[in-house]
Amino acid sequence: MSKIASTFSRLVRFVPKSNPTKVLIGEPVDPKLDVGLALYQGKEVAVRPFSGTSVLSPGNVTETTETIARILSPLAQSEVGTIRCIGLNYASHAKEMTLPIPEVPTLFMKPASSLADPWPAPTVLPKITQQDNTGDYESEMVIVIGRDAKDVSESEALDYVLGYTAANDVSSRTSQMNQSQWSFSKGFDGACPIGPVLVSATLIPDASKLQIRGLKNGNVMQNCPLTDLIFSVPQLISFLSQGTTLPAGTIILTGTPPGVGAAKNPKEFIKAGDEFAVELLPHVGTLINKIAHQ
Amino acid sequence: MSKIASTFSRLVRFVPKSNPTKVLIGEPVDPKLDVGLALYQGKEVAVRPFSGTSVLSPGNVTETTETIARILSPLAQSEVGTIRCIGLNYASHAKEMTLPIPEVPTLFMKPASSLADPWPAPTVLPKITQQDNTGDYESEMVIVIGRDAKDVSESEALDYVLGYTAANDVSSRTSQMNQSQWSFSKGFDGACPIGPVLVSATLIPDASKLQIRGLKNGNVMQNCPLTDLIFSVPQLISFLSQGTTLPAGTIILTGTPPGVGAAKNPKEFIKAGDEFAVELLPHVGTLINKIAHQ
Repeated sequence: MSKIASTFSRLVRFVPKSNPTKVLIGEPVDPKLDVGLALYQGKEVAVRPFSGTSVLSPGNVTETTETIARILSPLAQSEVGTIRCIGLNYASHAKEMTLPIPEVPTLFMKPASSLADPWPAPTVLPKITQQDNTGDYESEMVIVIGRDAKDVSESEALDYVLGYTAANDVSSRTSQMNQSQWSFSKGFDGACPIGPVLVSATLIPDASKLQIRGLKNGNVMQNCPLTDLIFSVPQLISFLSQGTTLPAGTIILTGTPPGVGAAKNPKEFIKAGDEFAVELLPHVGTLINKIAHQ
Repeated sequence: MSKIASTFSRLVRFVPKSNPTKVLIGEPVDPKLDVGLALYQGKEVAVRPFSGTSVLSPGNVTETTETIARILSPLAQSEVGTIRCIGLNYASHAKEMTLPIPEVPTLFMKPASSLADPWPAPTVLPKITQQDNTGDYESEMVIVIGRDAKDVSESEALDYVLGYTAANDVSSRTSQMNQSQWSFSKGFDGACPIGPVLVSATLIPDASKLQIRGLKNGNVMQNCPLTDLIFSVPQLISFLSQGTTLPAGTIILTGTPPGVGAAKNPKEFIKAGDEFAVELLPHVGTLINKIAHQ
């Protein structure tokens, strides 16, 4: 086994201005552009489309150029299957939640139906979250698995990584804290926006070098280097693949750094009208969503 | 909305003896036959095939007859999506585990990749479960959702039920107890055998009238009426669909009655060579698997 030989550096999935019924994938023409931020600011984003229609089989770059009418999550709901999420994977976040450092990764799952697009798609808080006003954000780095993985050793794990993107693990704290399991409180429709850019693992040989920030209405709420991860990317893939197939397309949300709303004093929950941005640098850029109520 | 008008009473999905490359669905000719038990005993099981290939769109019965070469789970992995499971839903099971009665349903999830077929397909225990010898069984009744459900009231909930089948929520106790989340310890490949018969909701207007048993190597380990359920079928569907789409094909494992191996004194875990049978009567019959080691 060897690393996945990517034909791309950074891919987006989008509806082009030239044809609103089409979905394309392609590479932004400007290799340094923060696509999410540029679109939010109303700028035109030019993309070189690839011949394929999925980031899992992108094909090759074509000779044309398109501009983005609507940005989509880099993988579709039908491609991600059951979403894996790690709880408590930043030492400093476990500390702020007054929870012990876990000895093994804490795994919970979100259904594919929670996957959502970046802005202008909203993050919709369901009624149950509005009622107790405990909607919260969690900025996270996402691993995208590129080939079926099962019983993978730590030393081989990076050979299965297609790339990385950003996510907001949108959470309802009261439901989460009142129950021993987290899948309900984090599994609502729209509770897993990801994107906008899928960055090839060839551009990010060591994800611990990344820096993640979470900004609510422009104010920095979370800001942490990924060196703070308790379980590294290879450790997570090896642990999760024990006796378990992680099909190509599986996404793994790797946990959130300190600064979530529930840990602020006073608490700072999200509500309709708020804007939340997850910034993962370098290469990935900014995932923005505005919050709405169901 | 009204109840789903089924064209069938009991459906199985199977490979026919006439053509080992085909997958068919159909209704067993004998309406009283315990299909799982009959196949395990080596009997021929005759089926009238339907025109469709999925229990979600079965079409109509045809005029031919086929015999089963290999029985399959009534829904395929590609149809069930993320599997919903309820923990602690029998009052008497919560008691044996010395856990409090939950105020709301405890939800965890299994990935579609854990879905498995009835015997002769094995239940494979992964290495991590063998190492600590904590493989366990959980006999469960399964709700199969027949149309997309979201924000469904309890009074409407049964309109979304296609039918019922049986499952074994195969579990690894040490992994489960050492971590706060259950998805890892119950999500291994093969940890969710279901079937063999999908029984239309028209045959089971009230699932609380069913009786479930779990038998290890022929010995009754679990035996409980479904009147013991803490959260009923309508309550579960209404709760789980809050702000959340349950796509057609979603299966909900409804919890296990008392008598799991971890609660026995001494504990009685499953290991390679054991046979476990989940019996759900009337109509559904017996789901049998032999245990194997990875």
